[in-house]
Amino acid sequence: MILAAKLIDIQTREVMLNIEDARTVGVLAGDRVQIINNVNGLSVAAFVDTTTTIIPRGTIGIYSRTNERLSVEDGMEVEVRVAERPASLTHIKKKMDGERLSKEETYAVIEAIVAEDLSPAEITAYITACYINEMDMDEVEHLTRAMVDTGEKIDFHAHPIVDKHSIGGVPGNKISLLVVPIIAASGLKIPKTSSRAITGAGGTADLMEVLAPVEFSATEVQQMTMKVGGVIVWGGATNIAPADDHIIIHEYPFRIDARGQMIASVMAKKYAVGADLVVIDIPVGLHAKVPTVQEGRKLAREFIDIGERLNMRVECAVTYGDSPVGRTIGPNLEVREALAILEGKKEPGSLLQKSIAIAGIALEMSGKAPIGRGSQMAGEILAKGAALAKFKDIIGIQGGDPDVKAEDIGPGSLEFVVNAPANGYVIELNNRSLISLARLAGAPNDRGAGILLHAKKGSRVQKGEPIFTIYAERGWRLQKAIEEGRRLMPVVVEGMLLDRVPHEVTWE
Amino acid sequence: MILAAKLIDIQTREVMLNIEDARTVGVLAGDRVQIINNVNGLSVAAFVDTTTTIIPRGTIGIYSRTNERLSVEDGMEVEVRVAERPASLTHIKKKMDGERLSKEETYAVIEAIVAEDLSPAEITAYITACYINEMDMDEVEHLTRAMVDTGEKIDFHAHPIVDKHSIGGVPGNKISLLVVPIIAASGLKIPKTSSRAITGAGGTADLMEVLAPVEFSATEVQQMTMKVGGVIVWGGATNIAPADDHIIIHEYPFRIDARGQMIASVMAKKYAVGADLVVIDIPVGLHAKVPTVQEGRKLAREFIDIGERLNMRVECAVTYGDSPVGRTIGPNLEVREALAILEGKKEPGSLLQKSIAIAGIALEMSGKAPIGRGSQMAGEILAKGAALAKFKDIIGIQGGDPDVKAEDIGPGSLEFVVNAPANGYVIELNNRSLISLARLAGAPNDRGAGILLHAKKGSRVQKGEPIFTIYAERGWRLQKAIEEGRRLMPVVVEGMLLDRVPHEVTWE
Repeated sequence: MILAAKLIDIQTREVMLNIEDARTVGVLAGDRVQIINNVNGLSVAAFVDTTTTIIPRGTIGIYSRTNERLSVEDGMEVEVRVAERPASLTHIKKKMDGERLSKEETYAVIEAIVAEDLSPAEITAYITACYINEMDMDEVEHLTRAMVDTGEKIDFHAHPIVDKHSIGGVPGNKISLLVVPIIAASGLKIPKTSSRAITGAGGTADLMEVLAPVEFSATEVQQMTMKVGGVIVWGGATNIAPADDHIIIHEYPFRIDARGQMIASVMAKKYAVGADLVVIDIPVGLHAKVPTVQEGRKLAREFIDIGERLNMRVECAVTYGDSPVGRTIGPNLEVREALAILEGKKEPGSLLQKSIAIAGIALEMSGKAPIGRGSQMAGEILAKGAALAKFKDIIGIQGGDPDVKAEDIGPGSLEFVVNAPANGYVIELNNRSLISLARLAGAPNDRGAGILLHAKKGSRVQKGEPIFTIYAERGWRLQKAIEEGRRLMPVVVEGMLLDRVPHEVTWE
Repeated sequence: MILAAKLIDIQTREVMLNIEDARTVGVLAGDRVQIINNVNGLSVAAFVDTTTTIIPRGTIGIYSRTNERLSVEDGMEVEVRVAERPASLTHIKKKMDGERLSKEETYAVIEAIVAEDLSPAEITAYITACYINEMDMDEVEHLTRAMVDTGEKIDFHAHPIVDKHSIGGVPGNKISLLVVPIIAASGLKIPKTSSRAITGAGGTADLMEVLAPVEFSATEVQQMTMKVGGVIVWGGATNIAPADDHIIIHEYPFRIDARGQMIASVMAKKYAVGADLVVIDIPVGLHAKVPTVQEGRKLAREFIDIGERLNMRVECAVTYGDSPVGRTIGPNLEVREALAILEGKKEPGSLLQKSIAIAGIALEMSGKAPIGRGSQMAGEILAKGAALAKFKDIIGIQGGDPDVKAEDIGPGSLEFVVNAPANGYVIELNNRSLISLARLAGAPNDRGAGILLHAKKGSRVQKGEPIFTIYAERGWRLQKAIEEGRRLMPVVVEGMLLDRVPHEVTWE
């Protein structure tokens, strides 16, 4: 069918047809049509929206994302027909039926995802099938390679290249802000790409953005790393392993993080930046992604296996993940806390210890530190101010203010202090509830929003003593966080058993 | 955030935000927002599209489907905030994790689907999870009841009510056009709701629409059935078990028909029309939905089990499904073939035999015919013209021309005859390829499009003799069908082994 194009600025791979024309072409809303620009020979498949009024018969509304591949102009005639069914749907069906996908099939699916040839529903079916039927290590390897090969790569001439990654699930895990400068200060190169928060209260990219721009091309990442030894950028801007973003966004509604996809996602990003030595932080705990140390070890072996297949040396740190790292959750609060430690503060211990432990593993792997001495060396680099100096270089080269100080970065101006309802001990800090609370307060979009913990797990508190403060930038957000907090009970205080005090929560 | 409404006539449950406003609200494209009409207190969740140009900051584009629940007018102010995550997503995740859903959880999911509170991707995740992890019979029962209770029901005062259903997968299965009039002519009531083709070349509703309108409300279905004993209508227009349409449309990209969902879908429609006696036709064959008789019997037991739980007597017919029923595929061709048999023609035998066998089961179940004599009675009803007279009543009451004759209904004017390439036997009629071919030729939208088989499986053919004809209404569709036919090879002719003729296909 020949229709006149009308360009519509909606950012999806769709077209809009009058419902009568859709019937003539033989499609329903949600179906795929092929649109052909007979002038330049370009052709693209797109999903159909229907209308009875805003697009008259004889016209097709072409959304801007669709027109990127078609280059038609308003009023031009285009040919529209039912689109072929993408072959990748057959592969997805195969995975739904519990079969293994071959390397070629996995590539076909990932190429279709990156080309935006699959609908959100079709991508979700793939994710769900891989989540339920799982992938074997061959499939994970193929997925990793497919993610790398459908994006940009960095090819460093100097080696070794170091990288680190935390699989997430623990709030306040701002260690990259310490680990990257320590490693770069040791003379190693670490081109750290990181994510923005999807389900969390602040990804490393959200944190770094408090200090400097984080959106750079792969080439810029390479050049900056060669100059100062390291960067902390947002992976999403680089076009490195772009399939991953498409997959993660569809895992989000279900809060799933399918094991095979997670491993592929992490390892693809490491492989694409040319990493030789990789440290993976696997937080373990009841409210973390991995509940037990045994499962943490199993996951570690899988990361190491995929690393070997891709010629990367991987070591994993199974870490304590049952409560937040440090005392803060939310961009500004976390950045202030990390900067303070770089500036010489010794508190909080958990953040300091974890950072030098992770950095130490990389130092040992590279041979910079003798085995068993990496953590000590990392601590020394930190103590002598070399990590702070290096972090200033990194902030500077990314376009931020290198003279920034911890005290310059404040939380939101609105706060609500939660006090202990009774004498007792903090027996639980619920990661998920703390994250929810920080998000409700506005994190990560409102950078000043978040939570400052005054008492950590196991600490003794007196009735009326502050146990945590919620910060926000907007009144209604603070209010929402306060309301939900009463329901979520993220911090549980209980008395000593000898006192026979009944179970109570922190909200009065 | 307060925004001015701008109504947009797009038939989806979405809103459009300027990308800056989306950021302020804290959502990305694809996320859910809650829109509140503070004038009338109505509130609805909708999915977000973003734009940089067509909706300015301060304005929200509200699509017509969204506004159905909101009743705002152009220019009115509405409140927009991040929507809560529907609880049904948690239940879907539970099914993804291989757990059973409770009755309440199944109801929550189905209610959300019917209310259009779930995105296509979220519905797809549910379908995929149920497909892979399967449902037990309790879950199938709950799903059936949930489908019934979220739609309209018919409550007949006269009993018994008979119904029949074929699970599909076999082309040319127009038996309802014979079975319904035979049963109604016997004095029983059969309010048959049927589907339009989704993956097929013509559903029963598409066929009946050649003769009369098929879109009626549940009340009209009841009234017409009371008057003439039966109807053949499109279930999609009745609001009976509406969840089913939402589910089927998302199974379509993957060509899946998950067992539990299929049983629930069929049984919900029977239960909702108040059926007491139900005959299920289960075609079995290599290219049918059910490959073996064993699996056909297992499925039959499951239908019977769900029937018992819902107080319906169910009998199943496991039928031959390895090649088309009758000689025709496509609306006009099939209707002509069925009408001819009602008018007294004895050919083709497969259509006649299957129709009286299925009708006979219902006659026996109802006590109209003694056990073992139902098929004979059905044949007599047909032979004496009572079924034809009844079909005219049905056509008439649905608003069609009761004087229509088989010879009035012709196929499309364009045709292409495929001849046998050699002497031999028809050793295969591939259901799926035949359906694809009929669809490419234009069926079911082009009612005259389809396939007429001259030779059936096992018949001897001479070189150059016609083996089938493709009919179409439009030249380019016929061309497309011819091209694809060469690749699909729906009919395979092979010589007798004694002749040592090499393997050849029907296309020259």
